[in-house]
Amino acid sequence: MMIRYPNGQAYVQTTTKLSQKTINPNYSNRGMTLEEDINESNLYYLTNGIAVIHKKPTPVQIVSVDYPKRSAAVIKEAYFKQQSTTDYNGVYRGKYIDFEAKETKNKTSFPLQNFHEHQIEHMKAVVKQGGICFVLLRFTNSDEVFLLEAKHLFPYWDESIKGGRKSIPKKIIETIGYHVPIHLHPRIDYLKVIDHLYFNQ
Amino acid sequence: MMIRYPNGQAYVQTTTKLSQKTINPNYSNRGMTLEEDINESNLYYLTNGIAVIHKKPTPVQIVSVDYPKRSAAVIKEAYFKQQSTTDYNGVYRGKYIDFEAKETKNKTSFPLQNFHEHQIEHMKAVVKQGGICFVLLRFTNSDEVFLLEAKHLFPYWDESIKGGRKSIPKKIIETIGYHVPIHLHPRIDYLKVIDHLYFNQ
Repeated sequence: MMIRYPNGQAYVQTTTKLSQKTINPNYSNRGMTLEEDINESNLYYLTNGIAVIHKKPTPVQIVSVDYPKRSAAVIKEAYFKQQSTTDYNGVYRGKYIDFEAKETKNKTSFPLQNFHEHQIEHMKAVVKQGGICFVLLRFTNSDEVFLLEAKHLFPYWDESIKGGRKSIPKKIIETIGYHVPIHLHPRIDYLKVIDHLYFNQ
Repeated sequence: MMIRYPNGQAYVQTTTKLSQKTINPNYSNRGMTLEEDINESNLYYLTNGIAVIHKKPTPVQIVSVDYPKRSAAVIKEAYFKQQSTTDYNGVYRGKYIDFEAKETKNKTSFPLQNFHEHQIEHMKAVVKQGGICFVLLRFTNSDEVFLLEAKHLFPYWDESIKGGRKSIPKKIIETIGYHVPIHLHPRIDYLKVIDHLYFNQ
């Protein structure tokens, strides 16, 4: 069953769908969601002592809870809330890492409506504090992932708020963003780009 | 209604109880939970451009969701999960900040059962990555809050796992920890201790 947020966005469970892996062993396009791929990458980084980066839990507004005797509390009524920050953060080489990941079926541009105001505000605050902040953008059709530094996203967002263009052309992303290498493990090796950008490697 | 985790620990809502504030205007002991005080402090840091530090949402395992027409999705069955990390993290002066906050009614020692294995493992991984990692410990009776660096917590935890003492004596915490200043705003000014420890201020 597909679970959806109030805004219609799909809620993706973090459980890896093993069946899909078996069906399509080609790791460049395995039918995995972007979230699954990133979680796998973060687990790889964690277990190999490379970085400690986690996805934050989905925020939920709890309204009613049952306390059956001798068993776990059951939440009987709750609602999805919008995350007030980005979804992923953690530490890499002492530096604070913070990012959001989005995907689109569009072929020629990335729609900015994938982001919301709170996330952009949060990213601006993080950049001011000297944190490493970026977005991972996947074009599902070509199965390409780009890392775009938050500072390059802001002008496009601000412009779109003022009634300007509501998306970033893919050609621009190819210029100001970085192609993220796709491997078997880690699937989305975004820290390679961070090494290049912040550690001269 | 008091909401509880499966392990019996109270689930504390982040809503500030205004009525309690009114009843007891003495800000050194206002009946606020530690979580409420820390959230207020983090909001103070955020709105004043000092730091970007958030509490992670309570993790919930969602089992069943209803999709009524024309209204928000309703979670009908879900369970509390244990956080696999600490509750708080963020960025301060470019540095990664990560901590857990606990309180006790004990007067002479802090019970280690307040922590769980996953949290300690997470803190050890963060320290290895060069993150700033600590715990905030409140003795509710005396309303004192101490900042104890994670590296000082680990030996006591490891000892307790091996069958040793299950708590840290308050006298020890007073020696190896730091008294956190309590103000009206921010209530628990833990970054003052971080300034002293990491930025020579």
